[in-house]
Amino acid sequence: MYQPQALSALGSFLGQRLSTSKSDLDLHGQSESYFSLSPPDAVAYPQNTGEVQKIMRICAEHDMPVIGWGMGTSLEGHALPVNGGLVVDFRLMDKVLEIRAADMDVAVQPGVTREALNEELRATGLFFSVDPGANASLGGMAATGASGTTTVRYGTMRDNVLGLQVVLADGRVIRTGGRARKSAAGYDLTGLMVGSEGTLGLITELTLRLHGLPEAVSAGVCAFTRNEDAVNTVLDTIQMGIPVARIEFVDTATAAAFNAYAGTNLPACPHLMVEFHGSPDSVAQDAARFGEVAADHDGLGFQWSTKEEDRRALWAMRHNAYYAILASRPGARAMVTDVCVPISRLARAVTETQADLAQASIPGPILGHVGDGNFHSVLLIDPTRPEELSEARRLSHRMVKRALDLGGTATGEHGVGMGKLEYMEREHGEGWDVMTTLKQALDPQGILNPGKLIRPV
Amino acid sequence: MYQPQALSALGSFLGQRLSTSKSDLDLHGQSESYFSLSPPDAVAYPQNTGEVQKIMRICAEHDMPVIGWGMGTSLEGHALPVNGGLVVDFRLMDKVLEIRAADMDVAVQPGVTREALNEELRATGLFFSVDPGANASLGGMAATGASGTTTVRYGTMRDNVLGLQVVLADGRVIRTGGRARKSAAGYDLTGLMVGSEGTLGLITELTLRLHGLPEAVSAGVCAFTRNEDAVNTVLDTIQMGIPVARIEFVDTATAAAFNAYAGTNLPACPHLMVEFHGSPDSVAQDAARFGEVAADHDGLGFQWSTKEEDRRALWAMRHNAYYAILASRPGARAMVTDVCVPISRLARAVTETQADLAQASIPGPILGHVGDGNFHSVLLIDPTRPEELSEARRLSHRMVKRALDLGGTATGEHGVGMGKLEYMEREHGEGWDVMTTLKQALDPQGILNPGKLIRPV
Repeated sequence: MYQPQALSALGSFLGQRLSTSKSDLDLHGQSESYFSLSPPDAVAYPQNTGEVQKIMRICAEHDMPVIGWGMGTSLEGHALPVNGGLVVDFRLMDKVLEIRAADMDVAVQPGVTREALNEELRATGLFFSVDPGANASLGGMAATGASGTTTVRYGTMRDNVLGLQVVLADGRVIRTGGRARKSAAGYDLTGLMVGSEGTLGLITELTLRLHGLPEAVSAGVCAFTRNEDAVNTVLDTIQMGIPVARIEFVDTATAAAFNAYAGTNLPACPHLMVEFHGSPDSVAQDAARFGEVAADHDGLGFQWSTKEEDRRALWAMRHNAYYAILASRPGARAMVTDVCVPISRLARAVTETQADLAQASIPGPILGHVGDGNFHSVLLIDPTRPEELSEARRLSHRMVKRALDLGGTATGEHGVGMGKLEYMEREHGEGWDVMTTLKQALDPQGILNPGKLIRPV
Repeated sequence: MYQPQALSALGSFLGQRLSTSKSDLDLHGQSESYFSLSPPDAVAYPQNTGEVQKIMRICAEHDMPVIGWGMGTSLEGHALPVNGGLVVDFRLMDKVLEIRAADMDVAVQPGVTREALNEELRATGLFFSVDPGANASLGGMAATGASGTTTVRYGTMRDNVLGLQVVLADGRVIRTGGRARKSAAGYDLTGLMVGSEGTLGLITELTLRLHGLPEAVSAGVCAFTRNEDAVNTVLDTIQMGIPVARIEFVDTATAAAFNAYAGTNLPACPHLMVEFHGSPDSVAQDAARFGEVAADHDGLGFQWSTKEEDRRALWAMRHNAYYAILASRPGARAMVTDVCVPISRLARAVTETQADLAQASIPGPILGHVGDGNFHSVLLIDPTRPEELSEARRLSHRMVKRALDLGGTATGEHGVGMGKLEYMEREHGEGWDVMTTLKQALDPQGILNPGKLIRPV
C-alpha cells in the first residue's frame, strides 16, 4: 500500500534511524497496560524538528498514520499504532536546550525525561514539579496532560507548560504560548495541544515553568483504621487551607504490597502520605496541624521528618506502587482506573469502590492523589483468563459511572487513549463532537494517532 | 437586509427585552477606550440559556453578527459591533447559582460581576481571586482571559475557570470542563473558550474556582528614587520566593495622579504596592523580608500594616488608577498599552519605555502587575487632536515591538480585540492561521463577534 514508497522516502534521510526490525516494531506495539500487541510498520528516530517536519510531510503524502512515542509509560494505550503506520520515537531529541533561572523557565526537547530534567536543574535551586510517578518523557507528559503527586500544590502539565513547538499534520511548524508568564493574545493553543494525545500535532520543543526548591520540606505517613477516616482527614486538611505539597492515600492492600516489594513494615491498614514545602518553621507548623487533623479522625499517630533520606524512602515507596502492586500477583497485567471527583464526594466514591472490590473476583488495590479528588484502583488480571479482563472492565465501568454521577471525570490524569473512549460521549455530550470538529479542522486526513481520544471513524 | 425579519423573530419571544432605542444602541456602540462609536442594530437582554440559544439560531439563519456584552469595561474594543448586528447584553443573567463551599467552587451566570460574587461569598470564608480592577462581569472576564493584581499568586481566568456552558454559533449548547479539580478527558475546551473574546461562542454559565480567605493579610507601599530600583526589587522578591499576593508598580506620574484624584500624599517618585496572605506570623515575616529587599535597592522606607482599613485605602487607590490618570488630563481619552515580558527583561522594558515617554508629546503614566512582568502605559489623548492618537499609536507600537523582541507578548491581559490585531501575525506566525482555522471550524458563517482576534476577512 503506502509503505514501500513512504518508507523509501523516509529512509532516504533517516538512514539507520528508520527501523523495521521485528524487535523495534514489537517494542513500539506494546504498552504498560492490558492492551494487545499492535506493532507499527516502522519506527523513526528523528534528531531535530526539521526531520519531524519532513517525516510528517511524507506521511501526509502517503496517508500514513503518525504516532508519537516518548517512554511508552502511558496507561490507556495512547501510543499504540492500532492502524499501523509510523511511530516517531523522540529518544534522540533529549536535550535540555536552555535553563533560564532568572525567569524560572526552561526549554527542552520532548525526549527529555522528568528525572533527567531535574538532574540537570540540580545546581540551580529550581525544580520541575509535575511528577506522575513513572519517569516519563516531558513530550509525552504534555501530550497526555499528566499530573501526579505534587499537583495539589503546583498544578498539572496544563499549568506548567508555558509554550510549545508543534509540527502539525500538514507539516507546518508553529510555536504556541511563549516565555511571558501570562498572555491574552488569542486562543490558548498551548492549552489545546496539552492533553491532545498526539492527535493534533507532534510536540518538538517545550518551554516549562520551574519552581524554586523549598527551603525546607517535611514529610510523613499516618495510618488509619478506616478508609473514611483517611479520606475525611484529606477533606479537612484541604478546607483548612493547610498547604500540602503532596497528600497520597493508599489502602490496606497497597500497604501490604509495599511491605512485600520494598521490605517496609507498614501496619495492615490504610495510610496517608503527606509532604509540606516552606520554611523550617512553616513545614513544622504544617505537619503539626496536619497531625492534629489526623488525630481528630482517629489517625494512628502521624510520623514525620524533615530529613531527606526519610523523605526519599517514603516517596520511592510511593513511586514504585504500580510495580509493587503488579508484583503482588506474579504474571498479572494491570488495568489502572483513574477517576477524579469533587473532593466533597471523595469519601463516598472511595467507600463505594471498596465495597465493589470486596465483592470482586480479582484484586484491585486503591491509591490516589486524593488532594485533587483523584484515585486509582490497580485491577490485576491474569492475561490467560479472559473472564478476568471482563471483570476488570465491569469494575472500571462502575467506578467511572459513579464518578460521572458525582460530578467528576472519567480520567483525572491518565487520559483517554483507547481505554476511556467509551465514556467521552457521556462526559462531554456534544462537546465531544466539538473535539471531533477541531480534530478534523487540524488533521483532515486523520493521520495523527488514529483511534485515540476522538470518536472512531 | 437581514434586520427586519431577524428582529421580528427575536422580538417575538424577547418582547421588551429586545431594544432598538437610540440610547441603547449608542450605549452598546461605545467602549471605555479610544475606539469610535459603532452602534449595533439591536440589543437583546436574554434571561436564560434557552433564550440565548434561540437568539443564536435566529442570528445564524439571518447571517446577523452576535456580540456578547458584559459590563463594557474591556479596553481593546472587544465588544464593539463593528459590522452591526445584535449585542447580547447579559445583565439579566446575573444570578449566583450555587456556592459549593466544601469543593471551593461556585456556579454563576455570566452577568454576575466580580464584586457582586465576592459580596455573596462574604459569609463563606472563600473568595474569587481574579481582580482586573474594573468591576467587570465574570462572563466578560472569562471571554477576555482577564487577570490583574492577584494573578502573581492566584492565577488568571484561565487558571480559575473550571467549566463553562457555551452556546455555539450553530445554537448547540455544550458544557466544557467540570467540577473535578483536574481532568485528562480530551481537549481542553474550557481553555479554548477562555480568552476567545466571544468569537467561538457565548458563555451562559461558569464554574469558578474559589480560594480560602487568608487568615491574615499584610499590605504596604514603598517609594523608590529610581524606576530601576523598584523593578529590581520585584525581580529579587520573586526570585527569593517571597510569596507576594500582589506586587504593583506605579511611576511618578501615576503617584501624582493618585494624589490629585484621591487626596493622598504620596511622594513624587515611583512606588511598589505589595500584599501578603497567610498566617499572622507569615505575613509579618514576608513583609519584613520584602522590606529588606527594598532597602537593598535604596527603597525609601517600606510602610506596611495588617489593618483592613489601611489595606482597603491602598487598593481602592490602585483600583481607581485608570480613572485617576484619566482625570489628570480633563477631557482626555486613553489608549492603555498592555505588554508582558519575561521578568528578567522587565527592568529593560520599563526603562526604555520611560525614555520613549520622556520624548513623547502626550502623557503616559506607567503602572503594572510587575510580578508577572506585565505593565501598562495609560496614554492620554485629546480626542479633538488626531495627531495625538497617532502619537499614542507610535508609542504603543514601540512598546509592543520591544516586548516581542524581549520574548514577551503584545497583551498580557487586555486581549486582542481590535487594538492588538496588527501584532498577532508577528507574535504567532502560522499559529495565527491555526486560530483562524479553529474559528472557521466552529463558526463557519463568521457571525460571532466579527472583526476581533482573527485575521479580518
